[in-house]
Amino acid sequence: MKPFETIRLDDENSAVIILDQTLLPKTQKYVSLTTIDEVWHAIHKLQVRGAPAIGIAAAMGIYVHMKTVDSNFAEEFEKAAAYLSSSRPTAVNLSWALGRMADTLRKYKDSPDIITKLKQTAEGIKTEDAEVCKTIGKYGATLLKPNMGILTHCNAGALAASEYGTALAPIYVAHENGIPLRVFADETRPVLQGARLTAFELQAAGVDTTLICDNMAAVVMSKGLVDVIFVGCDRVATNGDTANKIGTMSVAVLAKQFGIPFYVCAPFSTIDVNTETGEEIIIEERDGGEITDLWYKERLAPEGVKTFNPSFDVTPAELISGFITEKGILSPPFNKKKTIFT
Amino acid sequence: MKPFETIRLDDENSAVIILDQTLLPKTQKYVSLTTIDEVWHAIHKLQVRGAPAIGIAAAMGIYVHMKTVDSNFAEEFEKAAAYLSSSRPTAVNLSWALGRMADTLRKYKDSPDIITKLKQTAEGIKTEDAEVCKTIGKYGATLLKPNMGILTHCNAGALAASEYGTALAPIYVAHENGIPLRVFADETRPVLQGARLTAFELQAAGVDTTLICDNMAAVVMSKGLVDVIFVGCDRVATNGDTANKIGTMSVAVLAKQFGIPFYVCAPFSTIDVNTETGEEIIIEERDGGEITDLWYKERLAPEGVKTFNPSFDVTPAELISGFITEKGILSPPFNKKKTIFT
Repeated sequence: MKPFETIRLDDENSAVIILDQTLLPKTQKYVSLTTIDEVWHAIHKLQVRGAPAIGIAAAMGIYVHMKTVDSNFAEEFEKAAAYLSSSRPTAVNLSWALGRMADTLRKYKDSPDIITKLKQTAEGIKTEDAEVCKTIGKYGATLLKPNMGILTHCNAGALAASEYGTALAPIYVAHENGIPLRVFADETRPVLQGARLTAFELQAAGVDTTLICDNMAAVVMSKGLVDVIFVGCDRVATNGDTANKIGTMSVAVLAKQFGIPFYVCAPFSTIDVNTETGEEIIIEERDGGEITDLWYKERLAPEGVKTFNPSFDVTPAELISGFITEKGILSPPFNKKKTIFT
Repeated sequence: MKPFETIRLDDENSAVIILDQTLLPKTQKYVSLTTIDEVWHAIHKLQVRGAPAIGIAAAMGIYVHMKTVDSNFAEEFEKAAAYLSSSRPTAVNLSWALGRMADTLRKYKDSPDIITKLKQTAEGIKTEDAEVCKTIGKYGATLLKPNMGILTHCNAGALAASEYGTALAPIYVAHENGIPLRVFADETRPVLQGARLTAFELQAAGVDTTLICDNMAAVVMSKGLVDVIFVGCDRVATNGDTANKIGTMSVAVLAKQFGIPFYVCAPFSTIDVNTETGEEIIIEERDGGEITDLWYKERLAPEGVKTFNPSFDVTPAELISGFITEKGILSPPFNKKKTIFT
């Protein structure tokens, strides 16, 4: 579907191949990661980002690493998994994917096929993610009618996952079905994933896209140009509180003010059954240079100014209209008995 | 008070001297404007910006221009004023200041002192503005207690006006009185007046300042770090609807969500008695390059992406706790009989 591949395994060369997202949209360059250290840095530096994609990167990365291990399999795995987990703390997908790999390790630890099994699990996570994303897209597309305006924040598209992405999946599915839509992409400071990535991939797919600064979302909503909001997410507490890219909560508050439905699109695995409310979610705080100069080539803010750079925020459950998952459009609380399918 | 002078008249050289704000904070360079065309471009390119400051620039600019006129005074004045008015449409101060100059012209049109009178009016507008800003600061400072957190958007400080500015005036007054405060400055995309100008002048004054991206304001508010919000404005309708830098409405909606008082600080002359509601205010839309590349040195967004770049938004009156003016802290509606002094 897309003219690029976000992430893939090159088993022959024992490498994880990623599209370097820090260089987009100007340059499409693929980077080959062959050590656990390279994978850690690629995730930390945002060369590969997006909750599902970093889960896939971690699974493939630990597989490539385990190919080099001769003895003390369990111990080596645990060390590598703990290290990779520390690359970015907020998204649950990272630890979820490593957990899947750990399950495989436990199950086949005495089998001669263990390396093959780890490979199958890592590649399976990617394949499943692509299927999950497409299903999210199909459920989400039921909410879309011709000429609707959709606002999205950050990038939760093909570059953040496999194939359709999460928040952009309903848009891609509707677009493939010939439904004309207008998308407003928040640029998403400080790292500008909206300007660099969402605008890039929506344009590549031929979707009508308008780039705005984050602080313009209120105007676009107040003018009646937005009918629905789709965002991705990094971790959902069982009460429905949702951690996603910084700025998401602000969009949700504005949506409430202007009476616009606000949906979170995510694989069901993004719901963290070990987290009851948003207060328990660890929010990554990144270097202030992202605010003062990183994307400007030269420093814009005065030297010595303090910064506060939380990478995510937590949107309270009551501001969320629903969760579009591969199991349908759901409402919290999320435990097996009480989950309501709407 | 400040280690810079935003704007002044150099009468000997028939020039308006401005601090070029497009080069801050890296470079402090003063530019000499000697023709009406140079003044128009300096305002349009944001070398001088901020509602009060562009009013002063226009008044001084038209004075410098009128010094060169030998005949057809009224006609030449009208042509020049119409031209200057077109440099930026949203702020009422521009047309208000030109109106003051027109009044002087009408009053002294047959007097040999006309040029002197125009000079006095232009310089008077600056002097009055400094006094008005200081009074705004004194009224606003009554709302501040030690260790309060204040959030501001864009730049409505010394660089936007004379001396104390408007939204920053209460902070400067309190700071001079030894009251410790914490200020959060929204960076204010796309032109980053918060990062480049507000952070610069607050730091220069020794005020504790933390720079955040616009989309982080909600988090800072939700953490209880903000006790009050001060913003400037460009035009106030008589019902209280307020046009100010893009993103202001978003801050006001968030303030409502988190129960934080939201004040507009402005000279009383910013209330436009000819504008009944915000719907009548013309919103300047600027080049999309401001979003896609202007401040990045190289383009960040993909080529050909559409943009929407309104330079201002209109905050509905019901989201505004009060208007801090030189006449006190006021509530709309603004007509002589009904204005309520709170």
